[in-house]
Amino acid sequence: MDFEYSQRTNELVQRVRHFMTDQVIPAEAVYEAQLREQTDYHQVPRIMQEMKAEAHAAGLWNLAMTHGDWGAGLSNLDYAPIAEEMGRSILGNEVFNCAAPDTGNMELLALFGSPEQQNRWLRPLLAGDMKSSFAMTEPDVASSDARNIATSIERDGGSYVINGRKWFTSGICDPACALIIVMGVTDPAAPTYRQQSMVLVPRNSPGVTIVRDLPYFGYVDRMGHGEVTFTDVRVPAASILAGEGEGFALAQGRLGPGRMHYGMRAIGMAERALELLTRRVLARRAFGAPLSDRGVIREWIARSRIEIDEARLLVLRAAWLMDTVGNKAARTEVAAIKVSAMGVAHRVIDRAIQGHGGAGVTDDTPLARLYALSRALRIADGPDEVHLRTIARLELAKYKTEPHSVA
Amino acid sequence: MDFEYSQRTNELVQRVRHFMTDQVIPAEAVYEAQLREQTDYHQVPRIMQEMKAEAHAAGLWNLAMTHGDWGAGLSNLDYAPIAEEMGRSILGNEVFNCAAPDTGNMELLALFGSPEQQNRWLRPLLAGDMKSSFAMTEPDVASSDARNIATSIERDGGSYVINGRKWFTSGICDPACALIIVMGVTDPAAPTYRQQSMVLVPRNSPGVTIVRDLPYFGYVDRMGHGEVTFTDVRVPAASILAGEGEGFALAQGRLGPGRMHYGMRAIGMAERALELLTRRVLARRAFGAPLSDRGVIREWIARSRIEIDEARLLVLRAAWLMDTVGNKAARTEVAAIKVSAMGVAHRVIDRAIQGHGGAGVTDDTPLARLYALSRALRIADGPDEVHLRTIARLELAKYKTEPHSVA
Amino acid sequence: MDFEYSQRTNELVQRVRHFMTDQVIPAEAVYEAQLREQTDYHQVPRIMQEMKAEAHAAGLWNLAMTHGDWGAGLSNLDYAPIAEEMGRSILGNEVFNCAAPDTGNMELLALFGSPEQQNRWLRPLLAGDMKSSFAMTEPDVASSDARNIATSIERDGGSYVINGRKWFTSGICDPACALIIVMGVTDPAAPTYRQQSMVLVPRNSPGVTIVRDLPYFGYVDRMGHGEVTFTDVRVPAASILAGEGEGFALAQGRLGPGRMHYGMRAIGMAERALELLTRRVLARRAFGAPLSDRGVIREWIARSRIEIDEARLLVLRAAWLMDTVGNKAARTEVAAIKVSAMGVAHRVIDRAIQGHGGAGVTDDTPLARLYALSRALRIADGPDEVHLRTIARLELAKYKTEPHSVA
Amino acid sequence: MDFEYSQRTNELVQRVRHFMTDQVIPAEAVYEAQLREQTDYHQVPRIMQEMKAEAHAAGLWNLAMTHGDWGAGLSNLDYAPIAEEMGRSILGNEVFNCAAPDTGNMELLALFGSPEQQNRWLRPLLAGDMKSSFAMTEPDVASSDARNIATSIERDGGSYVINGRKWFTSGICDPACALIIVMGVTDPAAPTYRQQSMVLVPRNSPGVTIVRDLPYFGYVDRMGHGEVTFTDVRVPAASILAGEGEGFALAQGRLGPGRMHYGMRAIGMAERALELLTRRVLARRAFGAPLSDRGVIREWIARSRIEIDEARLLVLRAAWLMDTVGNKAARTEVAAIKVSAMGVAHRVIDRAIQGHGGAGVTDDTPLARLYALSRALRIADGPDEVHLRTIARLELAKYKTEPHSVA
Repeated sequence: MDFEYSQRTNELVQRVRHFMTDQVIPAEAVYEAQLREQTDYHQVPRIMQEMKAEAHAAGLWNLAMTHGDWGAGLSNLDYAPIAEEMGRSILGNEVFNCAAPDTGNMELLALFGSPEQQNRWLRPLLAGDMKSSFAMTEPDVASSDARNIATSIERDGGSYVINGRKWFTSGICDPACALIIVMGVTDPAAPTYRQQSMVLVPRNSPGVTIVRDLPYFGYVDRMGHGEVTFTDVRVPAASILAGEGEGFALAQGRLGPGRMHYGMRAIGMAERALELLTRRVLARRAFGAPLSDRGVIREWIARSRIEIDEARLLVLRAAWLMDTVGNKAARTEVAAIKVSAMGVAHRVIDRAIQGHGGAGVTDDTPLARLYALSRALRIADGPDEVHLRTIARLELAKYKTEPHSVA
Repeated sequence: MDFEYSQRTNELVQRVRHFMTDQVIPAEAVYEAQLREQTDYHQVPRIMQEMKAEAHAAGLWNLAMTHGDWGAGLSNLDYAPIAEEMGRSILGNEVFNCAAPDTGNMELLALFGSPEQQNRWLRPLLAGDMKSSFAMTEPDVASSDARNIATSIERDGGSYVINGRKWFTSGICDPACALIIVMGVTDPAAPTYRQQSMVLVPRNSPGVTIVRDLPYFGYVDRMGHGEVTFTDVRVPAASILAGEGEGFALAQGRLGPGRMHYGMRAIGMAERALELLTRRVLARRAFGAPLSDRGVIREWIARSRIEIDEARLLVLRAAWLMDTVGNKAARTEVAAIKVSAMGVAHRVIDRAIQGHGGAGVTDDTPLARLYALSRALRIADGPDEVHLRTIARLELAKYKTEPHSVA
Repeated sequence: MDFEYSQRTNELVQRVRHFMTDQVIPAEAVYEAQLREQTDYHQVPRIMQEMKAEAHAAGLWNLAMTHGDWGAGLSNLDYAPIAEEMGRSILGNEVFNCAAPDTGNMELLALFGSPEQQNRWLRPLLAGDMKSSFAMTEPDVASSDARNIATSIERDGGSYVINGRKWFTSGICDPACALIIVMGVTDPAAPTYRQQSMVLVPRNSPGVTIVRDLPYFGYVDRMGHGEVTFTDVRVPAASILAGEGEGFALAQGRLGPGRMHYGMRAIGMAERALELLTRRVLARRAFGAPLSDRGVIREWIARSRIEIDEARLLVLRAAWLMDTVGNKAARTEVAAIKVSAMGVAHRVIDRAIQGHGGAGVTDDTPLARLYALSRALRIADGPDEVHLRTIARLELAKYKTEPHSVA
Repeated sequence: MDFEYSQRTNELVQRVRHFMTDQVIPAEAVYEAQLREQTDYHQVPRIMQEMKAEAHAAGLWNLAMTHGDWGAGLSNLDYAPIAEEMGRSILGNEVFNCAAPDTGNMELLALFGSPEQQNRWLRPLLAGDMKSSFAMTEPDVASSDARNIATSIERDGGSYVINGRKWFTSGICDPACALIIVMGVTDPAAPTYRQQSMVLVPRNSPGVTIVRDLPYFGYVDRMGHGEVTFTDVRVPAASILAGEGEGFALAQGRLGPGRMHYGMRAIGMAERALELLTRRVLARRAFGAPLSDRGVIREWIARSRIEIDEARLLVLRAAWLMDTVGNKAARTEVAAIKVSAMGVAHRVIDRAIQGHGGAGVTDDTPLARLYALSRALRIADGPDEVHLRTIARLELAKYKTEPHSVA
């Protein structure tokens, strides 16, 4: 047992941290200003393009890609602390080409794509020349239950024809988005978890319509969370990913590393919030003393430190388990980090906002958006309750065959 | 002891409830649509003007004005349950001419305004012909400590000259806003709580500049929360309210009923959220059963019911105390309702959002905005921590002279 | 709506408060000492007998009996604030002949007892000449589900014969206990809620055996919580209460006022704990200042004040509803007070213990026992979860017929 | 970074786990029965002597001793998972000669004892031939502030003379207790943290009087928590430990490993409670289904799993830090584990009790005592609030020199 990061990870963490501190964090206000000046909110602001170019040149690129020779050759455990650093700013992931949903899509393509699919979609994604989106969730149903998916993917000769309505199709509003991975039903008569398939749909296919860009708590994301209709959208049969009926398995497999990424990003958000809180209360005075002298605020700080450290260790261990025993054996841990890390982040951000007074709810700090984001992420990618059920089921299974033993 | 509302209150509650259910709640989406279509976000949408006219005609008007013959002659306790009904929609207060900061301003003018001030400002406010704003909080300091107020109000011959910067000056962006009540320092040499005064400043005075409209969590309010600079703003000496040095006392007095209004509004928000949650989980299915069959969700509903009922009673009792023993004797209770009711509202709204899944964070329901609003209101009008300190101080004072008694 | 207690209640509250402060609270240590000196822990210590005699003489007696001419003629709402005062000491209820399970048993006898049953059991209970116990809960099953009751009450000629095992049969270890009200199954073939009956069993009946006195967290109660076996216990057929098949209905009806009593007692416990905490932190110093200067402790005090005041109002309103619309219509409220008031008491006691440091876990203050008691009472009389389910069911029922309405 | 225990630790964990499961846990009821049958509650029951002999013979002995050649040569990190296993039963630590306060005392003697002190006290402690106690806390003051220590240790010729009153002197009631390590003031004129010293006092010294054995929540421990008076207790000058003025430093140093031991023990308690809860809800039915089908209970189980895993990782990392960078550099982490692990244990035990219904508060399971113990341990060894202040101070110090930087 050893809690020291590897030398390579330590070096990468240092380099990413400096990049974040020196460039990305100071760029936040510039990015917002450029966004406001653009006619199209969804365009990439210039400063982001510049930072991406620099990160690419510096070799801080595709660090999240852990499969084959496609990326930097890091393991999940290697990447986790780097993901934390990137998570300190809402801009971090994009700068280093490590943003969802591209990361998950790249993983699917690396593991299950045909060579043709990889050449067409994976290579430009890795190069940063295009963006992608992922269309699974559907409106008006509990999408955490796969049986609620209604979008149809019907075979018609050499094509698949897609009809349905998706929402929270993240990334689709980015003008650079060229690919949508769509989850739908290819065989309603198959067993429950063999009905679904994933298919690669070019963004500019006829019949793909973005109905609207979904907000969360008043915010919209530059890359968008689209509500999208698919009306008789036709793609060649070779666009299927991995094969018919594989959709559910792909979705499950896709989620392990993604949850770890979200988990470490949440840790990064929480560390940022704690730093902002600490600096703020050292600098502000009320009733004759700095706010940092207040016992209640000190308790916020202390509990935040404890909760962050605990959640980080939980995520790191889950990453280690994914690397050593695989995503499936680590199901409890992968479910746990989603619930824990996002909850901690939201709580720490909440305290940081309270410590900022009125400024905390404005956009003068990143806290308000992080509050909204961390709350939304307690629902996105499966609400907490679904993950807690998974954990409980696995825990109960340990004793199910022997309920009457003495303990 | 009797928990029944008076007959008059019951009748008014019924009438307001029907107005809310039949007109205001269905108008929410229309209002949002009209806002989006306007070139100026801060204009009053047509549907609001129509509803106001109807409410006025129906006599459901100025019910919050509890002083003298200016309003409907209700007591705080009479008004409280009506405020709850209005709180069910974010549009409610404005429809019935009971919106902050007008209510607090009208109260100040009714109690402390000279006949000239009342004729010029109070009458048109009560008629709904103009709007007003209140400028107390300043950026970059903890405004809950009155000593941090830096805006100066200097006597210069027959005028006062105002210089300073305020923020969260609510209501100022409304084109109908004609009056700003400004809190500032008239005598920096006076004892701490006699330094401040309030002065009535016409919105269109030279030197008043709205720097920006402050957002909260990605939302802006139609009536705005301005950051405002006052540069050599000159008003006649007769514009002072109640007299020099009265500012702190006025601010304190202003807050009692206002906190009760916020408290009951929070109860209304919470009831709305609980209704939305309950209807939603009855209507949605996952994993073979309606969400309403889930034990965890049932516990959310039950705890919400308990917490709402408790907080409502606390606010009603505070209203009764304000009516019977006065705002000052009810300091503990007035502080308590701010903390409790807003906390309950935020918690119930949080559960309702979680029960809605992805839809909960969008603007397809009022929940996301209510989440942002209820969070912001744990800071506005004094952060929770300040109120808790007040309560603790009063509680400790009960025993301070006799710490060693046996208990 | 009026939050003032009636004049009669106010007078009784004052008299009980003085009795509590002057006699009962100072007697706690004496009572413990006398208990330790006795050979039989379950005997009534002398000081209790003396206080009872005084309370009886002063007319502070049977105030909990709200039915007919049997008691003082108080309503539930009248009695509630008096119950709070008694709750400030663990000895309070017994002093004033208002202790469970006698109160519930006296209520059953007053409402449903035959004149013979009333003469034999109710009169001496009201006189304080005997004690009683209530045997419903059974070991090894979830007794909150009536279907789990296994004790049989079989008709055999002019007798009933009782066989079964009960536990948490409170009061049975008191040497003065003369009566056990036993709940059991008279007709296993009847509909679920008509199978059970209650029967009056003399404590000294052959076949009644106290197996052990159940502790809670290391404490035992003087009056005991017996695990009891009934082996061919024979009573005359006239011992049935209200009639065969009435057991479930009696149990339900019995619980309303009992829960209110527990609720107000919990408020009394919480007030006592808050007083102890406040006095303690004013008197103790660490790191150069009294503990009462600590912000964290001030927040404990303030939150305790808010939570206690809220829970008190909730219980008072439930009492008022029981008086005005009846126990059944007040089901939500009666369920709510059990959960809320006991939770608040446990939380406030927890803070008071923490404020006392090591002394808080010893028996140098009443806090440790109150901590144990308030925790046990989150299970006794129905675990929180059962009450929350009741509340949720009733809340869902409001909307069940119209789930698709717009809200 | 590697989350796998070392091979040696894994083997020891397995052996201790089997010993715990096969012998210690089944012995709990026997131990209680033997205790009850003894005339002196503080004697070692026979079954404990037998288990100790077996553990000693099996080499599962003194595993907590990490210094020099005195023990098994384990590091803190090696020992931590073993401590968790022992923590599953309240008897565990004693069986393996790893119980407090002996462990801390043995550590002090190993690190700072003279060869004579080691021969006289350390060797028999390691052999299990005697027991010891530790007298630091004093009644009526906040002992977490060293300045509140009043016991005097005065030099008088070749002796020290001790006068004072201590409480929570754990272990002193055990008939085998031969040594008390006493903390007191040798030089009231010295700087605050150089006033105190520790001195080795034979238990049978004239003037040492056990006033009483302190209970916690109705429980007493076999080895006792004495309130002890020292009246002119005279020991040779050579009895001082490490030197005059070293007391505070020794106390600080003593606490690192001790807090880790408590932390891992808390994890063991929590795992035991979770196992008991899980087995119970699988075996019990209410309202037609096993309790394990209840969503609310499943959420308890899932949250318990997450919280336990997080707290365990936090403690393990603190152990690793103590081994690699030392106790002082790990102050934040050592403070954090006390707060976190004990809090988690209490919470999980609370859920397990609730899941057991009435049985949970009796002594039919170990849960009730564990509830009391885990609550007491949120105060013992420094209340949570003191540890949180330490963490906050260290966190604030990170930014104190640069409060105005942009973040």
